[in-house]
Order: sequence, then structure tokens, then C-alpha cells
Amino acid sequence: MDLAIMGTGTVGSSVAELAGEYGHTVTAMANVDAAAIDPDGIDTAAALQRQQSEGQAHLGDADPDDVLAAEYDALVEVTPVTLGDAEPGFSHVEAALERDKHVVLANKGPMAERYADVRALEAESTGEVRFEATVAGAIPVLSTIEDYGPGTMTAVRGVFNGTANFILTRMAAEGLGYEHVLAEAQDLGVAEADPAFDVEGTDAALKCVILANVLAEGDREFSLADATVEGIKDIPGTALELAREDGRTIRLIGEVTGDEIRVSPRLVPEHSELAVSGTTNIVQLETENAGRLNLSGRGAGGPETATAILADVNRLPDR
Amino acid sequence: MDLAIMGTGTVGSSVAELAGEYGHTVTAMANVDAAAIDPDGIDTAAALQRQQSEGQAHLGDADPDDVLAAEYDALVEVTPVTLGDAEPGFSHVEAALERDKHVVLANKGPMAERYADVRALEAESTGEVRFEATVAGAIPVLSTIEDYGPGTMTAVRGVFNGTANFILTRMAAEGLGYEHVLAEAQDLGVAEADPAFDVEGTDAALKCVILANVLAEGDREFSLADATVEGIKDIPGTALELAREDGRTIRLIGEVTGDEIRVSPRLVPEHSELAVSGTTNIVQLETENAGRLNLSGRGAGGPETATAILADVNRLPDR
Repeated sequence: MDLAIMGTGTVGSSVAELAGEYGHTVTAMANVDAAAIDPDGIDTAAALQRQQSEGQAHLGDADPDDVLAAEYDALVEVTPVTLGDAEPGFSHVEAALERDKHVVLANKGPMAERYADVRALEAESTGEVRFEATVAGAIPVLSTIEDYGPGTMTAVRGVFNGTANFILTRMAAEGLGYEHVLAEAQDLGVAEADPAFDVEGTDAALKCVILANVLAEGDREFSLADATVEGIKDIPGTALELAREDGRTIRLIGEVTGDEIRVSPRLVPEHSELAVSGTTNIVQLETENAGRLNLSGRGAGGPETATAILADVNRLPDR
Repeated sequence: MDLAIMGTGTVGSSVAELAGEYGHTVTAMANVDAAAIDPDGIDTAAALQRQQSEGQAHLGDADPDDVLAAEYDALVEVTPVTLGDAEPGFSHVEAALERDKHVVLANKGPMAERYADVRALEAESTGEVRFEATVAGAIPVLSTIEDYGPGTMTAVRGVFNGTANFILTRMAAEGLGYEHVLAEAQDLGVAEADPAFDVEGTDAALKCVILANVLAEGDREFSLADATVEGIKDIPGTALELAREDGRTIRLIGEVTGDEIRVSPRLVPEHSELAVSGTTNIVQLETENAGRLNLSGRGAGGPETATAILADVNRLPDR
């Protein structure tokens, strides 16, 4: 397939780098300042090298506004997540579907904040919308729910944010306080300079909102406002010590059950499936006929998230 | 879709019971003695009730030989696994593909022992062959490998047999010997009267052979003869005690790496991902770009395996 990639950050760059390996051609690529467009296929390595050494305005000599009108089969939407109206990501999705192109998202905004709007546009289009990469990176959560049937899932819960999980793992392992471990995480590149999105639970909540929308199968629409969210900033080191004395630890758990979406720190048994370590994510699917399925692995990262995007491209019907 | 179910044992009966819930119609169903056929849909509950109370010859009044010529979209092959020529399962697959019907297997024989033959028939047919249920029951292993790309998987390993795993778990937990725990497992219905297939590692090996065939993507064909297999019958209780003193336990692990297929007991750290308990199965996929994916859950059982079959039906192209 021919791919147009909107967003050339960590994930977008990885998709551009790996697309050829999976048999796809990148025919357009854009950040907010510049674009590269070539219906016969961009030299992605050269474009990314220019972006790296000279700045993102040097990605290519085309206008970002021209990407949506370019030749492609599937739009890969990997611009930074935005809340509320989910713009400009939502407009990118809209433009692609109106031209009967497919859309593959890693940007959580549209499917968390405007799920029904996206599905309505999809219904009027011959293009399909897929978004495995919006929930738990490389872990095949949404395709599993899709194949087994959303109606057969009674609950979904898990550890959805690697930054928060890394911090809690280190706090428990070293007996150190939150601020100290956060600084360590930032030094390692595991936490951002402004870590609020991760440590306040917003990132995990958006993923749970998307899951709730998928499980509801169109009967009801959820957005971030429907989630009850509590992060990890107020957990003292002593809480983790007390937990350990009782054979437990603390993890930031997101759960979707019926109409309820909740993200909060929870005590879990020390060696339970939910007590994953470091930046690992885990998703537990409770099913009607097959008990519990556990899916765990890397929930974030350039190549990791790119594999989820390319798995989605693999599932699109041929044009 | 209309389904023809060959085999009315535990799994076949569950597929018949659940098919309606998933929007499918059972138009034919057979065991070795009798069949029920109705192009408008069988009363599966009545047929299974007759089989249960009067014996399998009373499933219905049709001839099993007529099922393959009946009206259906997908043949569900759930007859008991056979090795070598994989008959009669292979002939059932052949008959369906020659009529351009789809095939969904839980019977491991054809894809383990005659993989290339099945793929050759499939290439000449407009029917597709799917076999998620042949490896690790409800756990979505094959669809994950398919979506992410078999070529991106560098190794697959796991606990593939719940009977053997249950026995090892109980031996470690209770300090009891193999024979004693085997008897307990048979009482619970977790082990068969003749448990050889499970405890000698053959069942796990067949699953690993299927995985090796999938990963090889047609470059090479494997069968049971290519696997190195060692079961759990010779593990003394003392081995598990010694392991525990070292923070380890013993699990029957199957692994596929490159051209090597091996099933054998292994020492694993006590709380590692591979040290699943009871009848739980786990599969670890090592990927090129996304690190390790862990998928665990119920690897066997009527409803559990039926959900994998129905997930495969869900993935078939509409007729």
C-alpha cells in the first residue's frame, strides 16, 4: 500500500523507516512545517536525515497542506494527541475518509474524544479506520477484541502507561520518593520534561476511553469527561513499603467495566499478572466464554508503536 | 455464515452451542456414526441432547458421508487429531477446499503433519484455511503472528499443554510425586485416562510444529518428526524441591527458533512469565521491532477453543 504519514515525531519516523520492510511505499510525509511528497515513493531515509540534522522545516520542499490531496491508500495519523475537538487530527481523518482512503491512527484524540463522529464519517466512506496503536503500543488488544467480538468482553483492565509504571517500580525497588524517581525517569528519557500527561493518568484514561467506545459497539459514546482519573503524584514511598510488608505493591490500573471507566493507583499482589515491571504494559480481557486473556509487552516506543500501525495496515482490505 | 461441523466432541459441541450467539447457522454436523443436515439450520440443542442421552448414533438421521456435500460456507474440522497422513481430517479439508469452501481447524493433524499439502490445496481454491484453535486454545497467537508478520518473529516459546502444567504445578505445591498428582488430575478431568499425548509432550510438540510451519512462510515444511520432544514423566518430586530452594520451578516448555523445534522440561525462575500455574497456557513471541509479547490464558476446553474457532470464522472473507 501507499502510505501518507501525518506527523514525523518518534512514531511517524519509525513508520517511515519500517514501511519498506513490510512492502509498503511512503508517498507523502509531513510535520507542521514541511512535507515530502512523491507518488513514486519518497526517499524516507534522506528526508528523515534532513529533518534530524537541519530541522523539521527541511523534511522536504512540499507544503504540509498538500499531503491530504496527495496519492495514497492509507493515511497514518501520528500527530500529537489533542483533547476536546481533537484537531487537527480529526480534520486529517475526515479529509482521508471523504476521499475514500483508509485511516490508521496512533493519535488517541479522535477515537477518544470524537468516536461517534469518526464512525459516522467511516460509514459514509469506502475507507476503513483502524487504531490498534492508540491502545498499549505493540500489544494486539483491539484486534483481539475485534476477532473475539466486543460483545463477549465483560471487562478490560490493565497497566496502560509505562512512565507511571516505571516510576512505581523504581519507588518500590529503591525505597525512594516520587520526585527523586521522576527525575531519574526524565534522565533516562522514560518521562517527559512535562510528565503530567503520564503521571496524572490522562494517557491511561484516554486508552480506557477508547476501549470503552469499542466495547460499547455504538450503543453509547464515551470521552475523557466520562473517566474517573487519579494519578500517582500523591503516593508516598511509605505506602509502597507498607504494601510490600503485606506481599503487595501499587500499580496505576485502568479498568473498563460496563459504563464505568476508572484510572487509579491500586494495591495488587506482588507477583500478580498486573504487577508488571518497568515500562511494560499489560491488558487483561475478561471474556464470556474463554475466561481471562492476558496480553503484555511494550506499550510505547517508536518501533514498537510502528509495528502496531503496520499490523493495522496489514489488516486493511486491498484497494 | 453457514457452518458444517465435523466432530461433535467437547469442542465441536461447544461450537454448535455458541454459533448462534455469533450470528452463524449450523447447517450440518457429524460424528463417525451419524449426522444432522438442514440447509435452513439444524436445531443444534436438540441434536446434542439426543447425542448426550441416547448416544452419538442418534445425533441425527443423516449419513456422515453426506456432510461434505451439504450446503455450507465454512467447514469446522474438529475430529480427533491423527498423525502421519492426518486422516480422515485431511480428506475433510481437501473436500471442502475442492468445493471452494473455507476451512477452520481445531484438529492439529493436517497443519502439523501435512502443512504443505494443505497450503497447496488452498492455493487452488477460493476457500481460506484458518487454524487459530490448533495452538493454545483461546489465546490469539496465530492471528497476532499473521498481523505483525511471521517474518518479524525471531522465536516463539511457551507453555502449551495445560495437563502437564497442572501436574508440575501441583507437584511443586504439594511436594507429591508424579503418579500421585497424575491420578488427582485424572479425577478432576484435567488428564485423560490415557494421558500419554499430554505428559509425553506430543500435544505441545504438535503446536510447536504448527508454529514452525507458520513462521517459515512456505520456505520449509516441518512435521512432528522434526521436533525434539521430552515429557514430564521422569521428573522426580525432589527435582522441584531443589528448584524451589534456588528460587526456580520446572515447566514443560516448547520453543521454536530458526529451524529448531524443542519441547522439554526446563528450570524457570519461580515468578517468571513462563511459570504459569495450573492449566493456564502462555506464549511468548520475540519480535524484531517490538521486543517480547506475552499472551496467556486458557489453552483448552470446549467453550475456550470454540471462541478461537469463531474468531477465525469472523476473520474469513464474506462469501
